[in-house]
Amino acid sequence: MLETTERGREYQERLQAFMDELVYPAEAVYEEQMAAAPTPHFQPQILEDLKAEAKSRGLWNLFHPHKEWGPGLTNLEYAPLAEIMGRSGSLAPEATNCNAPDTGNMEVLTLFGTEEHKEKWLKPLLNGEIRSGFAMTEPAVASSDATNIEMTMKREGDEYILDGRKWFTSNAMHPNCKVLIVMGKTDPNEATHRQQSMMVVPIDAPGVTVERNLQVFGYHDREGHAEVSFDQVRVPAKDVLKGEGEGFAISQARLGPGRIHHCMRSIGVAERALEMMVKRAESRVTFGQKLSERANIQDWIAESRIEIDQARLLTMHAADMMDKHGNKVAKNVIAQIKVVAPNMALKVVDRAIQVHGGGGVTQDFRLAESWAHLRTLRLADGPDEVHKRAIARNELKKYRKDTAR
Amino acid sequence: MLETTERGREYQERLQAFMDELVYPAEAVYEEQMAAAPTPHFQPQILEDLKAEAKSRGLWNLFHPHKEWGPGLTNLEYAPLAEIMGRSGSLAPEATNCNAPDTGNMEVLTLFGTEEHKEKWLKPLLNGEIRSGFAMTEPAVASSDATNIEMTMKREGDEYILDGRKWFTSNAMHPNCKVLIVMGKTDPNEATHRQQSMMVVPIDAPGVTVERNLQVFGYHDREGHAEVSFDQVRVPAKDVLKGEGEGFAISQARLGPGRIHHCMRSIGVAERALEMMVKRAESRVTFGQKLSERANIQDWIAESRIEIDQARLLTMHAADMMDKHGNKVAKNVIAQIKVVAPNMALKVVDRAIQVHGGGGVTQDFRLAESWAHLRTLRLADGPDEVHKRAIARNELKKYRKDTAR
Amino acid sequence: MLETTERGREYQERLQAFMDELVYPAEAVYEEQMAAAPTPHFQPQILEDLKAEAKSRGLWNLFHPHKEWGPGLTNLEYAPLAEIMGRSGSLAPEATNCNAPDTGNMEVLTLFGTEEHKEKWLKPLLNGEIRSGFAMTEPAVASSDATNIEMTMKREGDEYILDGRKWFTSNAMHPNCKVLIVMGKTDPNEATHRQQSMMVVPIDAPGVTVERNLQVFGYHDREGHAEVSFDQVRVPAKDVLKGEGEGFAISQARLGPGRIHHCMRSIGVAERALEMMVKRAESRVTFGQKLSERANIQDWIAESRIEIDQARLLTMHAADMMDKHGNKVAKNVIAQIKVVAPNMALKVVDRAIQVHGGGGVTQDFRLAESWAHLRTLRLADGPDEVHKRAIARNELKKYRKDTAR
Amino acid sequence: MLETTERGREYQERLQAFMDELVYPAEAVYEEQMAAAPTPHFQPQILEDLKAEAKSRGLWNLFHPHKEWGPGLTNLEYAPLAEIMGRSGSLAPEATNCNAPDTGNMEVLTLFGTEEHKEKWLKPLLNGEIRSGFAMTEPAVASSDATNIEMTMKREGDEYILDGRKWFTSNAMHPNCKVLIVMGKTDPNEATHRQQSMMVVPIDAPGVTVERNLQVFGYHDREGHAEVSFDQVRVPAKDVLKGEGEGFAISQARLGPGRIHHCMRSIGVAERALEMMVKRAESRVTFGQKLSERANIQDWIAESRIEIDQARLLTMHAADMMDKHGNKVAKNVIAQIKVVAPNMALKVVDRAIQVHGGGGVTQDFRLAESWAHLRTLRLADGPDEVHKRAIARNELKKYRKDTAR
Repeated sequence: MLETTERGREYQERLQAFMDELVYPAEAVYEEQMAAAPTPHFQPQILEDLKAEAKSRGLWNLFHPHKEWGPGLTNLEYAPLAEIMGRSGSLAPEATNCNAPDTGNMEVLTLFGTEEHKEKWLKPLLNGEIRSGFAMTEPAVASSDATNIEMTMKREGDEYILDGRKWFTSNAMHPNCKVLIVMGKTDPNEATHRQQSMMVVPIDAPGVTVERNLQVFGYHDREGHAEVSFDQVRVPAKDVLKGEGEGFAISQARLGPGRIHHCMRSIGVAERALEMMVKRAESRVTFGQKLSERANIQDWIAESRIEIDQARLLTMHAADMMDKHGNKVAKNVIAQIKVVAPNMALKVVDRAIQVHGGGGVTQDFRLAESWAHLRTLRLADGPDEVHKRAIARNELKKYRKDTAR
Repeated sequence: MLETTERGREYQERLQAFMDELVYPAEAVYEEQMAAAPTPHFQPQILEDLKAEAKSRGLWNLFHPHKEWGPGLTNLEYAPLAEIMGRSGSLAPEATNCNAPDTGNMEVLTLFGTEEHKEKWLKPLLNGEIRSGFAMTEPAVASSDATNIEMTMKREGDEYILDGRKWFTSNAMHPNCKVLIVMGKTDPNEATHRQQSMMVVPIDAPGVTVERNLQVFGYHDREGHAEVSFDQVRVPAKDVLKGEGEGFAISQARLGPGRIHHCMRSIGVAERALEMMVKRAESRVTFGQKLSERANIQDWIAESRIEIDQARLLTMHAADMMDKHGNKVAKNVIAQIKVVAPNMALKVVDRAIQVHGGGGVTQDFRLAESWAHLRTLRLADGPDEVHKRAIARNELKKYRKDTAR
Repeated sequence: MLETTERGREYQERLQAFMDELVYPAEAVYEEQMAAAPTPHFQPQILEDLKAEAKSRGLWNLFHPHKEWGPGLTNLEYAPLAEIMGRSGSLAPEATNCNAPDTGNMEVLTLFGTEEHKEKWLKPLLNGEIRSGFAMTEPAVASSDATNIEMTMKREGDEYILDGRKWFTSNAMHPNCKVLIVMGKTDPNEATHRQQSMMVVPIDAPGVTVERNLQVFGYHDREGHAEVSFDQVRVPAKDVLKGEGEGFAISQARLGPGRIHHCMRSIGVAERALEMMVKRAESRVTFGQKLSERANIQDWIAESRIEIDQARLLTMHAADMMDKHGNKVAKNVIAQIKVVAPNMALKVVDRAIQVHGGGGVTQDFRLAESWAHLRTLRLADGPDEVHKRAIARNELKKYRKDTAR
Repeated sequence: MLETTERGREYQERLQAFMDELVYPAEAVYEEQMAAAPTPHFQPQILEDLKAEAKSRGLWNLFHPHKEWGPGLTNLEYAPLAEIMGRSGSLAPEATNCNAPDTGNMEVLTLFGTEEHKEKWLKPLLNGEIRSGFAMTEPAVASSDATNIEMTMKREGDEYILDGRKWFTSNAMHPNCKVLIVMGKTDPNEATHRQQSMMVVPIDAPGVTVERNLQVFGYHDREGHAEVSFDQVRVPAKDVLKGEGEGFAISQARLGPGRIHHCMRSIGVAERALEMMVKRAESRVTFGQKLSERANIQDWIAESRIEIDQARLLTMHAADMMDKHGNKVAKNVIAQIKVVAPNMALKVVDRAIQVHGGGGVTQDFRLAESWAHLRTLRLADGPDEVHKRAIARNELKKYRKDTAR
């Protein structure tokens, strides 16, 4: 079976205990502290408390593949932990320092950062003292095609001058956000995938302006998804990651694990929604029958169980493939889970909303908020259609030379 | 063809002119005024300006079937107007005094209100001076089964004493909201559909407390969907509508036209989303091809066109049936449109979101907000499943005596 | 409402009486006669009996719009008759001389045939004495794109020489089939839609060989869908319909009404399947509950009712549009019904099969056979995707010059 | 990863070689021999040739878990072999003596047969000399609920007297079919799952009449799905399997592996259909573009790849669970695959049909036939709805005692 290891199982138990003892009970406290906050982009005390506790329990940086910085779990070991965290998505990932996009940024800085980057940005990130953003998507173009990117990064002596506008820069509204990794074009005349570069830019660099927050279906997320303008921002050449023209390659490297994390968290969301659906169906009666006894609701429950289990197996399979054969070989399966997991979770959560009646769309249950964020995942890191296109092209390639049989 | 009349067409033209000249241009102003408002439940000046203009153009109370109070249009004549209004749903319905739940309340007061009710509540409602709520749904039970209702209305001399808790009382956060129509149980020992009564209750009556607003996904709607508690609220017997035990019957009467309005507005939302989808698909390029040239996007556009046209024909058919044969005969078709229109519009808007990429889930386009509100319509006035059950039972009845052939 | 006329209603009643008194009772006889037949392409006596009776009742050539040849009903009047016929699709259409592709061929010969064509082919067709085929689709190319057609029609003096291979030539296995209308390319260098011509070719012309029958999901249809080869077939120039290069234009003209007939018959199939589903659900019990009491089966019944009613309204709307504004204006709506009706009917029949359990896939109920033929309709006259493409392009055109708002 | 063993992989290679060298090339021969056969229930020589070859290659009885009778593969090892066989479903399963329902019958006789049963029936079955049927489903009742079974088995001295009617007795039209395993009711007054018994009945026993074959869509399967009547059939008490009242228990035991086989074969069908779809899409051009370049076809290809891979992982997971924890623990996952695999394969094959145009519904490609047989799998061994009900009840049970959180 696609199973984690003994070590993985042990981490699951410890994480589960942390969830049961501290995280679930903290959910109501969190709601209260946020309701009383002066701004939606507020860091509530309960989260700092949870972070301290997670760190003391050794449930910290669980995502990090490098032994130096965390337990060094494999993707197959970490994936079930991401699912567990996903069940309480506002708290558990940040509490364990495993939240996006910091995780991806920490990986990139570990792999491609200079000593200075590691000292200045990576360490405080790994300690949970600061947060970071990833500025890639742009409002004016379809960013799923990297060649569309319009931000210019013009070399001038020892510096690059950045001009452009980014959005969906998650974390940029977080009070602790200090640094951005920014993708732009250093050379539009280069080969398609050598035009882009990535740079490390402090969020308070002159010319960087966090213009506004983007809502997600009415929600102002705490960490924020910001629109950020770059007006003649000067970045020293030493802050180019890996080298000029390496932007696309880095983005490919960072995507694999990040997608597995997203997918497993989505599965956690779906599992919790299914649990809520089942309990609600047991507790409501219409026309003399419990909802849980109605065959249409039973079909929804069964379909949800089936779809969740299939999505989990595929994601675990992708994790295992990445562990064994690397990002490149796993690429096609990762494209598959990127399509499967959010769509599956959206269906499950939507059914749960329906079973909850009017309450399902409100703040009284986590369902509407979960749905809204899952919906974004069908667009983030490329819309479904871009991934399906890649999967299809891979399939077509298999038979291109062999149309005989 | 299912066509409106000459008079209906003339109103369409006038309404269309009002939309083009005033409403669409007002959308940006509205956004600004609301962004600057001290509370989400704010009445912006632009809306009052539009109301004045609509009234002066005779585009006022268009929904009202009674000649005394409006143009006295048939359902078939009014339905296309509701579609047009739905295209700018935050502005056009209230600007023309055609917004729910005021429309339903005005109908109920016209039909069943006393002279005092008409003077005190109906007239200012018809003038757009005050707003009103309809308090039926309860948080603790599945309210789609009317027998579940728990609010008690105990007779004591010349008064009834109301105790209970309602939610999704739309309009109750509106600064101009003055009166509620409240449904509760006067006699739990009566026949199933004679237990309920409806009463007219001022929102400032002692014991009535507007507890909080319910968000729809992350949106705090201007008019609000409130949770309202009733603690020993004393209502004079003269404020019972139609008579004790008539609550269920009134709710049936009010539902027919209201559902047609909702459905046609949903169709307007879908049409506008399709228009946005088409324009966006024309303007975005990925991998060297306009989105509008990709066959999957073309399929979405075609399916949207087909689904919208089918939903409109069915709704027009229901309107025509109601005009010709009354609520009761039209009941089954109205259940059909209640299922069809919101689900159709959700699909169309979801596709439009997908074509808009990340921006689709934000405040920059109306799409996410539209989706959220359409999603509520699959639950409001009974979830899809309750309507499907009714449709199926109607179908089964046809053959109950004839299982031979 | 989208209603037929008084005259239309009268024909409905008479046709309904014919169905009840003769057609439904004949179904079992037909099964018996066909089971005992020496070949699946057999003309059973019961069908000739029904034809005689229909003719004597004036229920003959109902489809024909020309008063000279039939009652001259409008499309809106005829459409509900096609639905009624569709309920017993093996018998009613041929019994009333309203079966495809003869109907289309009769229309084409009426409009574009010479006096000789009318005398020799049209009259016996209108009398039901002979049958005819329409040879357009080719096995080697995607024929939904007319420019792909490979059959050559080379002019040589007063004759054309036809070479090529057709398939899905329906009726060509019918014992009474005498004539084919054949589409081919007279001039590949002409403008795209002027390359094709249509000719009248006796099925026994030298060089015409009916090679074999094509099964449809295992069914050998009585009328057959033949593969026909044309080897140096000489056709006199006078047998070109309308003129050289008019083939595409004729095919456009013939398609409109034919599609409405197909769609309405599909709706008849769906209605009968729904009736069967309801009756079966009433008669079967599992785990102590009638299937008809289970909420998932009820959902299927309700969804079927909704989808049927929507498809019918759209088809009636298309018929009405064609009556009032002609083929060209109605073209887009006709593309819509071509997609909607077969897909809808497939869903309904598939649900009915599921409710019938194992028996549903067998010869004991008409369901499997109906499904198989409906499935072909998603491909005949162009696959769904070609029609959706046309609908989308029509939608895109609306906004091509106006991407502003 | 959910991987087979070294031994399993070796068998895969050998089976693959057998397919490539002999089975695929035999497909055309088989079509020819069957086309020339006097009856659809004909045993063509090519099949006997393939059987001999498979036996000589040690590719025989691969399904059998008992070392004595075959290689003794685990379910996880055998499952990928079943997938490979499914790619050529008319030939490979019978060629390797791995076809249903013989496989299930052989298992049951191995586990519960007497020495006499083994000598007389099991050995010739294992040698591929005879075939066998399984008579459970009845035409008059919904047989998915075992308590509905109406066949009576009345004890009279040393014999039971069987009266009733079965259908879907697969293999009963096979010229080599010699024996049936029959399920009926020995005691309607016993506990629900102790009323049924299973007996071994020679097909030529007095009173057994094979009444007719049931078509599947229009197909007359070679092995047949017969309706069989039992009129006062006398069965010696020694031919009761396992004991009176054990019928339900045996049927549970037999179902697990059989469902895995069915599902894996369905996955093989889907894989082959996807391969055909891809090749066809590469070879057809419409409107100047290869079908394989159109984004809607690419979506279908991608979705098919995703759905196949998910279904395979789930089925492998079920196989592994059965190997490790037995039928009972695996029961719920087996219910899941029973729903997933046929529905998935139906979707994939339907897309392949659509890409093949008209040809897709004919005998020229295996697609229509595959679809028809997959459709039956949604009903055989219980309709989807019965399995979903079981899955839902399992889910509900988890939370029955814990509705708190």
